[in-house]
Amino acid sequence: TILVLLVQGLGLTAVILVAVWMGHFREGFAWQSKPSLEFNYHPVFMVIGLVFLYADAILAYRVFRNVKKIYIKVIHAVIHVGALMFAAVGLKAVFDSHNLATKQIPNLYSLHSWLGLATVILFGLQWLGGFLTYLFPGMNTGMRRMMMPFHVFFGMMIFLMAVGSALTGIMEKATFLSAPIEYSSLPPEGILLNCLGLCLVALAAVVIYIMTR
Amino acid sequence: TILVLLVQGLGLTAVILVAVWMGHFREGFAWQSKPSLEFNYHPVFMVIGLVFLYADAILAYRVFRNVKKIYIKVIHAVIHVGALMFAAVGLKAVFDSHNLATKQIPNLYSLHSWLGLATVILFGLQWLGGFLTYLFPGMNTGMRRMMMPFHVFFGMMIFLMAVGSALTGIMEKATFLSAPIEYSSLPPEGILLNCLGLCLVALAAVVIYIMTR
Ligand code: HEM
Ligand code: HEM
Ligand code: HEM
Ligand code: HEM
Ligand SMILES: O=C1O[C@H]([C@@H](O)CO)C(O)=C1O
Repeated sequence: TILVLLVQGLGLTAVILVAVWMGHFREGFAWQSKPSLEFNYHPVFMVIGLVFLYADAILAYRVFRNVKKIYIKVIHAVIHVGALMFAAVGLKAVFDSHNLATKQIPNLYSLHSWLGLATVILFGLQWLGGFLTYLFPGMNTGMRRMMMPFHVFFGMMIFLMAVGSALTGIMEKATFLSAPIEYSSLPPEGILLNCLGLCLVALAAVVIYIMTR
Repeated sequence: TILVLLVQGLGLTAVILVAVWMGHFREGFAWQSKPSLEFNYHPVFMVIGLVFLYADAILAYRVFRNVKKIYIKVIHAVIHVGALMFAAVGLKAVFDSHNLATKQIPNLYSLHSWLGLATVILFGLQWLGGFLTYLFPGMNTGMRRMMMPFHVFFGMMIFLMAVGSALTGIMEKATFLSAPIEYSSLPPEGILLNCLGLCLVALAAVVIYIMTR
């Protein structure tokens, strides 16, 4: 349970750091009226959905030990729906920020964007697979048991891919800013975003530790 | 065993891709006489050491099933020494390329460099811990057994950190090049470096699959 608290603490810290980065240093948020500020929702929503909520959905089975199994399953599935919704809005924000900009920016050119899109697609498939196998219509017990190691393995891989996407995204944004902030002189914004990255790595380590216990 | 071959294939592909990237697109290699080309050894040596050799060291226990345990241990430890040596030369190359440049470049400012340095230090500690516990002087059987889950867990985490370091490093180098190569127009060099990143992710997935079997 101290480990579960650690995950919550690191997850919340990551959400706060990314929100401060975008809200304070990157001049806050707007929707389609200002595509350059619409971008700022992207990092925040991806971290909330694909890191914070995702981790909590995984932990649900460890936290609610004495709740009926079917309830935990529904909690697990519903938190994952929440994660998917945040991810969808976060992607909408970044695509808008490219397509609605006065000087259009191409889509899907970077390693970050390829890795990120693969992560979201696999996440969607995993959700569908989990739903069909364990909730509705639900397979027989033998099949469920056979699928479980794969469900857990892919769940872990996709989580790691989400963290990897976040790290490459942070790195990309950091170097975009090279001119205005001079990343290499390590200004407050640079320190903040480095700490955000390390926080995500620490979070991933604790989640994997709990999962492989 | 097909999985082991897959690891070799993906590992070799990654090494070839990073060598072609630096050797062909980034104008090849030099040592201290030309710091800007000395940099090019950094990505190549880090991938050879901390990804390719590291993966092979982990796999040693799975490949040499019917070799005497003490020999496998020595192979495992020796490959890890090789990994550490490549990493050391790779770090020397990047620090030189900053310090010997006509217009000096600061050290250790980026998320990539923080994560990377933490990875190499933890790798060194893990090596020392493994050596003291399992080779010389060697702890008693009870202690060895007690330490094993931690040795394996940290070995897996440090491997994932190495892959994360490589991904952030690739992303950073890619955006540095924004002016000359126009990353966002997806030139051949951009495609190559995206594929290198995905190749490393696939490799990590197979290694984790083998380890958690
Ligand atoms: C799990 C997390 C994330 C996923 C799955 C993800 C996914 C994506 C995708 C698919 C794109 C392509 C959009 C397009 O081509 O129009 C993109 C763009 C971008 N993302 Fe993320 N992202 C994540 C987190 C982050 C974070 C934390 C940052 C940090 C600032 C970030 C920064 C960027 C930037 C700068 C772009 C525009 C440049 C580009 O297309 O590479 N992302 N992201
Ligand atoms: C409707 C959707 C889903 C259902 C019904 C479902 C069902 C389950 C069940 C029954 C378990 C077994 C827990 C146990 O007995 O130990 C489980 C575990 C797990 N699920 Fe899902 N799942 C769903 C979606 C997802 C999604 C979308 C992901 C990730 C992308 C995911 C990741 C995981 C992980 C990582 C575990 C292992 C948790 C642990 O080791 O404690 N699941 N899920
Ligand atoms: C496991 C792999 C890696 C580790 C542990 C690692 C570690 C490091 C460290 C510690 C530095 C700081 C050097 C200094 O401050 O002078 C650095 C710099 C750098 N690395 Fe890597 N690296 C790795 C892989 C890569 C790869 C694959 C690339 C791809 C091109 C790369 C690109 C860079 C760049 C551009 C710098 C200079 C900018 C900076 O300091 O962030 N690295 N690396
Ligand atoms: C002198 C140094 C080392 C010794 C003597 C040593 C010893 C061992 C032993 C006895 C095992 C058990 C294999 C088994 O029976 O399943 C093992 C596994 C492992 N070691 Fe080491 N180790 C050393 C260094 C390292 C280092 C430096 C790392 C990584 C940084 C590492 C990572 C691992 C991993 C990941 C496994 C798990 C392999 C698996 O699950 O198949 N070891 N090591
Ligand atoms: O629906 C379920 O499937 C798995 C189990 O049957 C396979 O391990 C589980 O824990 C459920 O609640």
